[in-house]
Amino acid sequence: MVNATSQLPQQTDLEAAAAWLADRVVATPVVRSPALDRIAGATLWLKAENLQTTGSYKYRGATLAVDRLARAGDCPGVIAQSTGNHGLAVATAAQAYGLAATVVLPIDAPLTKVRRIEATGAQVMRVGTTVEERLAVVERLRAESGYRLVDAYDHPDVIAGQGTAALELIEAAQRQGVALDAVVVPVGGGGGVAGACLAAAGRDLAVYGVEPVGCDSLRRSLKEGRRVTVPPAQTLADGLRPSCVGELPFRIAYGTVAGVVRVDDRAIARALCLALFHTALLLEPAAAAGLAGAFRLAAAGAFHQIGVVLTGGNIEPAGLARLLTEHVAAERRIVL
Amino acid sequence: MVNATSQLPQQTDLEAAAAWLADRVVATPVVRSPALDRIAGATLWLKAENLQTTGSYKYRGATLAVDRLARAGDCPGVIAQSTGNHGLAVATAAQAYGLAATVVLPIDAPLTKVRRIEATGAQVMRVGTTVEERLAVVERLRAESGYRLVDAYDHPDVIAGQGTAALELIEAAQRQGVALDAVVVPVGGGGGVAGACLAAAGRDLAVYGVEPVGCDSLRRSLKEGRRVTVPPAQTLADGLRPSCVGELPFRIAYGTVAGVVRVDDRAIARALCLALFHTALLLEPAAAAGLAGAFRLAAAGAFHQIGVVLTGGNIEPAGLARLLTEHVAAERRIVL
Repeated sequence: MVNATSQLPQQTDLEAAAAWLADRVVATPVVRSPALDRIAGATLWLKAENLQTTGSYKYRGATLAVDRLARAGDCPGVIAQSTGNHGLAVATAAQAYGLAATVVLPIDAPLTKVRRIEATGAQVMRVGTTVEERLAVVERLRAESGYRLVDAYDHPDVIAGQGTAALELIEAAQRQGVALDAVVVPVGGGGGVAGACLAAAGRDLAVYGVEPVGCDSLRRSLKEGRRVTVPPAQTLADGLRPSCVGELPFRIAYGTVAGVVRVDDRAIARALCLALFHTALLLEPAAAAGLAGAFRLAAAGAFHQIGVVLTGGNIEPAGLARLLTEHVAAERRIVL
Repeated sequence: MVNATSQLPQQTDLEAAAAWLADRVVATPVVRSPALDRIAGATLWLKAENLQTTGSYKYRGATLAVDRLARAGDCPGVIAQSTGNHGLAVATAAQAYGLAATVVLPIDAPLTKVRRIEATGAQVMRVGTTVEERLAVVERLRAESGYRLVDAYDHPDVIAGQGTAALELIEAAQRQGVALDAVVVPVGGGGGVAGACLAAAGRDLAVYGVEPVGCDSLRRSLKEGRRVTVPPAQTLADGLRPSCVGELPFRIAYGTVAGVVRVDDRAIARALCLALFHTALLLEPAAAAGLAGAFRLAAAGAFHQIGVVLTGGNIEPAGLARLLTEHVAAERRIVL
C-alpha cells in the first residue's frame, strides 16, 4: 500500500478533486451581507460550508478519500481520528459505500457530533484529549483490524478535497467580476488552509490561516520553519484544538501562507453572533474563528475583497444557548 | 392612479416577476436534510429565503412593487405597514431607488427589525398592535404626503413577487427529478400562500398554508367563504399576526389552497431548533411555523415530497437565547 502521507498534493489534484466532487457534494452558496461588510470595513464573501453534507467542509476530503479506498478494493473498513467533523464526514462517506468505520474522538468531543457519528453505524471510541493519544489508539486498531486510515489532515485527498471549498469560493467571486485579494481559513490540523494554498496557487491572492490564541501550532511552525507542538489550551473552537499541524499541510503552507491571525474566545463568540443574526447562518465556533480572523484582517486595512470559508455549523445546543445568553444579551448593541 | 388592490394577479404575472427578479434577488438554495427527513417521515425541500436580501422573501415582492412605482415617475415616496419584514424590504428597495419611505409597525415589533428599517434611512412609526390601527395611520399619512402605498399583501406585485420563491422551489426539485406533491407556506396576510397558488397552478401539487393557533384568519375565511377577522392572539410567530387575511390573497386562495395547518408555540419552537441544529439555518418563528406545519402534514401521511418556503430569519437575539435556553436545554434529546 502506498503511504498516502508521503505524497504532496498538487494543484492538478485539487482540480481533479473539484471535478469529481462537483455533483457529489452540496454546491454551498457564497453568502454576502452588507451589514457584515459595514462592520468589517471590507467586502466579505462567505462560503457557507456549514450547509455542506454532515454540516462541514470535511465531507469533501473524506468522501474523496473513502471513494478511492472503496474503489481500490480489499478494504475491510476505514478508521479516522478527529475532533468531530472529520470523523462524522468519514463515517457518513463509509456508510454510503457500505464500509465499516471506526472513529476515535477526544473524551470531551461535542455530544452532538458523537451521536451523529454513531447514527451512521460507525463505532465511536473516545480517548484522551490530545491528537497524540488518539493517533496511538488509531495505530493499534489499524494494526488489529486492517482498517484503512483516513487521516484528518495528513492525507493528500483530504487536503485536495478541503481545498475545493476555497476554489469554489474564489470562482464564485470571479463570476461576480471580483478577484478576491485574501482567503481566510481556520486552522486545526491545517488541511483546509493547505488546500486553500493549492486553490490560490498562481493567483494574486493571500491565504491566511486563523488559530485560537494558545492553539497556534501553524503560526509557531511557520515562524520556526519546522512543525511545533503546542500544549493543550482551552478554546471555544473545539474543532481547532489539534496540538500540532499536519506534516503535509505544513509543507504546503510553509512559504505559501501569507500569515496566521490569532483570535480569542470573545472574538469568536462575537463573530458567531454576528453571522447568526446578520446572515441567518449557524456557525460552529471553529468557523466563527475564521470569520473573526477575517474581521481582524479587514481592520488591518490591506485587503478589500476577503473570502472566508465558513467551515462548519455543528455546535452543541446547550453551548449555543449559553453563548447567546452570555454574549448576545450582554452585548445586544453589536448584533442589532 | 390605478387601484392596485383591484387587480387579481395571474400566473403570467408571476412568471414575469420571476424573470425580472432573477438577477435582482439572491438565488437562495433549496436545502435538504436527511435528519429532518427522518424526523418528518417525508422528503423535505427547504427554500432558504432566510438567506434572501433583508433576511426574508418579502424583498421579492417589495422590490418588484417599488421598481414599478419608481419607473412610473412622480413618486414622492413609498409607505407600508408591516409586522416587520415587509417594512424592511420596502425600505431597503426604496433606498436602492433613492425614494423616501415611511414604515408603520406595531408598537411591539421586534427591535431588530425596527433598527434595521431605520438604518435604511426610512422613517419608522410604531402604532398600536393590530393591522387596522396601522392601516388607519397609513391612510392618513398617504393622504398628507402623496406617498404610494406598497401594501404588505393586498398588492398584485407583492403576491407575484412572493410567489416566485415557491416557483423557484418547485423548479429546483424538478431539476433533481422530483415533482413536489405539496408546498407549504406560513400565512400572515396571505400574500405568500396566494403567490404559491399561482406558482402551483396547472401542476398536481397541493398548496398548504400554516397559521399559528388563534391567528387562523385564512382557515376561518376559507371555511366561511368570506374574509374573517380574528381577535389578536399571542404567538411566537410575530410575523403571522395580521388579524385578517388580505382581500386579493383570499380571492386567490379560496378554492385553490388545499388546506391550512395550525401550529402552536411548542411546535414552532421545536421546528426552529430542529432547523437550526440540523441545517445550520436560523429561522424566525414565522418561518419555523411553516416547517412545523410541514411536519404535521408529513405525519398525516398523504404527502411524500414536501416543499417548504422558509420565509425569513429575522429574530431578536434575546428572544432566540431565551427560546434555546427554555426549549433546547429542556428537550435536548430531540435536537441531537
